[in-house]
Amino acid sequence: MHQFSTDYAEGAAPEVLAALVATNAEQHPGYTEGDPHCERARKLIRAACGRDDVDVEFAIGGTSANVVALNGLLRDWEGVICTKDGHINVHETGALAAAGRSVLPTQDADGFLSPEQAERVWRFQTSTGRHMTRPAAVYISDTTELGGVWTRERFDAICDWAEGHGLAIFVDGARLGSALTSPENDLTLPHIAQRASALYIGGTKNGALMGEAMVIADERLREAWPYLIKERCGLLAKGRLLGVQFEALFDAGREGDGAEAPYWRYARNANEQALSLRDGLMGLGYEPYGHSASNQQFFTCTAEQAETFGREAGCETFYELEDGRRVVRFVCSWATTDEDVAEALGLAERIR
Amino acid sequence: MHQFSTDYAEGAAPEVLAALVATNAEQHPGYTEGDPHCERARKLIRAACGRDDVDVEFAIGGTSANVVALNGLLRDWEGVICTKDGHINVHETGALAAAGRSVLPTQDADGFLSPEQAERVWRFQTSTGRHMTRPAAVYISDTTELGGVWTRERFDAICDWAEGHGLAIFVDGARLGSALTSPENDLTLPHIAQRASALYIGGTKNGALMGEAMVIADERLREAWPYLIKERCGLLAKGRLLGVQFEALFDAGREGDGAEAPYWRYARNANEQALSLRDGLMGLGYEPYGHSASNQQFFTCTAEQAETFGREAGCETFYELEDGRRVVRFVCSWATTDEDVAEALGLAERIR
Amino acid sequence: MHQFSTDYAEGAAPEVLAALVATNAEQHPGYTEGDPHCERARKLIRAACGRDDVDVEFAIGGTSANVVALNGLLRDWEGVICTKDGHINVHETGALAAAGRSVLPTQDADGFLSPEQAERVWRFQTSTGRHMTRPAAVYISDTTELGGVWTRERFDAICDWAEGHGLAIFVDGARLGSALTSPENDLTLPHIAQRASALYIGGTKNGALMGEAMVIADERLREAWPYLIKERCGLLAKGRLLGVQFEALFDAGREGDGAEAPYWRYARNANEQALSLRDGLMGLGYEPYGHSASNQQFFTCTAEQAETFGREAGCETFYELEDGRRVVRFVCSWATTDEDVAEALGLAERIR
Amino acid sequence: MHQFSTDYAEGAAPEVLAALVATNAEQHPGYTEGDPHCERARKLIRAACGRDDVDVEFAIGGTSANVVALNGLLRDWEGVICTKDGHINVHETGALAAAGRSVLPTQDADGFLSPEQAERVWRFQTSTGRHMTRPAAVYISDTTELGGVWTRERFDAICDWAEGHGLAIFVDGARLGSALTSPENDLTLPHIAQRASALYIGGTKNGALMGEAMVIADERLREAWPYLIKERCGLLAKGRLLGVQFEALFDAGREGDGAEAPYWRYARNANEQALSLRDGLMGLGYEPYGHSASNQQFFTCTAEQAETFGREAGCETFYELEDGRRVVRFVCSWATTDEDVAEALGLAERIR
Repeated sequence: MHQFSTDYAEGAAPEVLAALVATNAEQHPGYTEGDPHCERARKLIRAACGRDDVDVEFAIGGTSANVVALNGLLRDWEGVICTKDGHINVHETGALAAAGRSVLPTQDADGFLSPEQAERVWRFQTSTGRHMTRPAAVYISDTTELGGVWTRERFDAICDWAEGHGLAIFVDGARLGSALTSPENDLTLPHIAQRASALYIGGTKNGALMGEAMVIADERLREAWPYLIKERCGLLAKGRLLGVQFEALFDAGREGDGAEAPYWRYARNANEQALSLRDGLMGLGYEPYGHSASNQQFFTCTAEQAETFGREAGCETFYELEDGRRVVRFVCSWATTDEDVAEALGLAERIR
Repeated sequence: MHQFSTDYAEGAAPEVLAALVATNAEQHPGYTEGDPHCERARKLIRAACGRDDVDVEFAIGGTSANVVALNGLLRDWEGVICTKDGHINVHETGALAAAGRSVLPTQDADGFLSPEQAERVWRFQTSTGRHMTRPAAVYISDTTELGGVWTRERFDAICDWAEGHGLAIFVDGARLGSALTSPENDLTLPHIAQRASALYIGGTKNGALMGEAMVIADERLREAWPYLIKERCGLLAKGRLLGVQFEALFDAGREGDGAEAPYWRYARNANEQALSLRDGLMGLGYEPYGHSASNQQFFTCTAEQAETFGREAGCETFYELEDGRRVVRFVCSWATTDEDVAEALGLAERIR
Repeated sequence: MHQFSTDYAEGAAPEVLAALVATNAEQHPGYTEGDPHCERARKLIRAACGRDDVDVEFAIGGTSANVVALNGLLRDWEGVICTKDGHINVHETGALAAAGRSVLPTQDADGFLSPEQAERVWRFQTSTGRHMTRPAAVYISDTTELGGVWTRERFDAICDWAEGHGLAIFVDGARLGSALTSPENDLTLPHIAQRASALYIGGTKNGALMGEAMVIADERLREAWPYLIKERCGLLAKGRLLGVQFEALFDAGREGDGAEAPYWRYARNANEQALSLRDGLMGLGYEPYGHSASNQQFFTCTAEQAETFGREAGCETFYELEDGRRVVRFVCSWATTDEDVAEALGLAERIR
Repeated sequence: MHQFSTDYAEGAAPEVLAALVATNAEQHPGYTEGDPHCERARKLIRAACGRDDVDVEFAIGGTSANVVALNGLLRDWEGVICTKDGHINVHETGALAAAGRSVLPTQDADGFLSPEQAERVWRFQTSTGRHMTRPAAVYISDTTELGGVWTRERFDAICDWAEGHGLAIFVDGARLGSALTSPENDLTLPHIAQRASALYIGGTKNGALMGEAMVIADERLREAWPYLIKERCGLLAKGRLLGVQFEALFDAGREGDGAEAPYWRYARNANEQALSLRDGLMGLGYEPYGHSASNQQFFTCTAEQAETFGREAGCETFYELEDGRRVVRFVCSWATTDEDVAEALGLAERIR
């Protein structure tokens, strides 16, 4: 049956695959420089962001995107404030430390970086001058590690705080598609792009074979990126691959058609399937863990159920609770269908 | 007209593209772990190497492959000996230094690392004990930066030297296909794999969308690789992409057919077109620069000719000689056809 | 009046200064290699540790000692478990990250690394394989950041745990003199040296101008240290300075005299003055913060008192409690006298 | 007999030792911040440089000084141009690479960085854009590795070139005292300080126990230094030690006395003894290797003579020439006397 393990279990979305096939025989310069697909993708993304004065660059994946951007936003002795469960703090095998930069985690427990907790870290880290890593950026991800969707109020609050302290603002958008098409979202890409020093629009988890598009407003990072992406081993020789894919994802077809670009359409599908799955599971009596209105859904269940969901539906077990129950994750993607969700609910019903 | 700029100007070879399309809907675990395509690619490559006791891992490109492998073969204070024009010394924006390791270039001028020059670096670097970077590996690339093909005699000589000094042997095989199918080659993949601590088989420059397959015999690197490839930002989420491509490239079809795997067939094509182009250019009176029996050909010409070859055929100008003449490069790939070469020769005839 | 700000406010203890003066005109080889003072210091320290099979090396200070040792004990993708207030986690401006290694803090709140908390970090960090920094060492400091003295039971428990998981054991002994001469201590230097992969005996905070003596049992670190201390910018040209000082500190005079080496005598003085000060302050009604039987004493007082203790006696304010009260630190050193303590108590009486 | 091995074989010059003894009992804040000796040393050095608008900071030795300064002057992907025998390229165990920065050596063979060779490196390194380490600073040392003394003409030429290309200028002054007091010198400290982005005045090799004084004009490095020196493990807890020593070395006594500060007096002595030794050796028929008018003298001799000079006078053998002869080095210091030179010449006479 369909696996709900991750949103990067399948290959590429149809439009992306078709574009790769259609352009395969073309010869282009390498390294994302000077080929028409990268250039058009840049143009489409700038338009989606509502800004002409940003650079759009490409990375092969999230860790590379995070490390290169933060390496350029931070100086050697500086660090980035993020929540304790932030991807850069937990899931990247110390990649930022390997690039010589430090992560400064807050105690925020819900995945949302709050001004209050950021302020505590700031005060502590600046309390002895040069003897501590100096905070110079905040890292937030939308959606959060637990699928949380940022509201504009929350987002503006942390941006206001960061700007007030002279910190750069970095938005990890590995699942930005899911975030911005969530029914609970009230943010827009232009608004985020207006405030962020850099943000990325994730392709890997929303229909691309691989790739993230980095939108850079910060002057220092704009200058640094072309060198850093090479030095940090993330520059793709056949750079057009990234351009072709983002071009396909952000091409809404003929103007006036009112068609939505595939990027948003696929993200919306992932959310809708996930919310349908969530509602179904709740209807069956399963208990959600936390609250998510995006393409990742976390549910509490017994150890036996977790084992079955894992074996049959590919669900990862995220936590073991103190009472022995488990938290499992269901992830929907651009490829998940109504039938897939129905099948999963059928399984859930059998083992409840 | 066809561009002779690089061997990574096109997309993927037909078998590779077909395999990507055929497997697109499949769901697989990520990160090159546990999907059947990575596993089968590993098996095919181990067979091609004639060794079961090596790990086969994947990287997205040459710089990543070089940095991760050398990072694992060298300790913090150690360095790698290579020729002064070695890719790691010149063309990687200090990526190895960014990973905290040093390059120790020799004075070899022809792209082949010689025991004599390596010995000079060794003696110098070990002459004051801890005060100098300690050599701990040699780096060679086959073909070399200038398209040179290693002979077995040369290869064994540097391997003997390295083993005698306790150094690891690392083979950058970005163009290993071209090397091993060159008419001047007398090395075999099993022989290289027998002697190298690690080597990689380049996909990017021989028909893959992207990707290199690292064959690892060294115990420390076998242990380190899974972590280092993540920490150094080179782990692909949809890892199956690399498996699918190398599976396609190394699948020779039904046993007994005597068919050559696409990897070798495409490399052979690139060489044959390049040698045909070389012979044609020489017949037209153009003077080769150095000697190459592989898919890169270097020729001396006037500045005007270089400009035209650049504009029309995508040739890079590599050097400006002291007498004002230029050295231009023609690169053939898996995709170059007889017609492409004929067209290039037509151009060459017009402007000679 | 005497300042209780730190234990590195004065110059060198008399024996150390005398030795520096006495040996000043001697000519010696550099870099702690081959001079008789470094050699004799090594011999004395090996004897104090009761082990002949360890290397003794020297560093100029605690951060350098910590970074070089942990850089050598950990591989690129590995991390060290320590308490959240550990010096390497908080007070070193990201020096370990700058050396490419990660700190993995526990939630231990009292400065003592516990097997329970270490186990939690271990489980979490190894729960997703290569995607997280792998723990490979534990870091403990005796005394702790808050002046705590490790008991043998506690020490053996964390060592047992670390050995059981295959982790290296690193002991930051910046204040090891104070720890081992505390009335609450039941550990011995030989016992610590028997179990630690590496430990250092702090000179800077116990009468040396500068310098720490690293005792290394771990084979990999023994091989790495000579190179790493140079590469990490910590190798002193006039290396004899470190040898002369540790020779003076560990020279107990003629055998049979029963005299204690200055290192222990001075540490004992710092403790005795600190405990006398503690008892005096408690007698005056001041409330200790936590419990310390070593040369650092923490007391709770009003903001006004803290300000006065700071201005007059050099006390640092460590924390501001939620009720507005302050925690101030009094540090005694090899140089603190009975009169100094009496004067401080006089001040405390005036402002209580 | 007196050893001519290095200029850091002895302890401290008398004024330095006396100052350390005289200030030993004083209590001061740590880390070179806020103690009166560091402050006065800063003032004296700013006066010697003729600039009020520079920061003066301290390092414990040359490698630390070089790494911290260049780490701050260069961004992650940038490199520093220096001669191939430059200390940072050869003698620092890859310390700059360990800090993530690259060395870009020229082919200058005489130790002086020339605009012509620097231009060649510049052109090459900028020929492929982001694919190569970008030069962002030049490194020169006065005196050079082989004792060469920079003239103002040479110095201004390389500074003009560097400024013209927007590169920072870094002067390694480990032996700046010897350089500026050489009979062949026509540079002044104010002139160097006027042009250099950063320079350091070496203490270790001119009478200090250890320490270098960094004069920083570059704005980015001024901001970075306090953090970098800590992060790169070079911040001394008893920072006053560095202040006390440089205060002693740059204190010329009562104004109007016309007395020379000890720093210059001792450097002059080292030069005078070295030149007297040079003249004596030449008079005995020994052949100088290269030309040095500073405190290091290089001479050609037989293997047997080299062995004797090494064993008796501590001379290092620097090179083995192709004809089997050796190049040995004699180094004079602040402590070398007329009698020492006479004794060395007596030895030379016996074995010639």
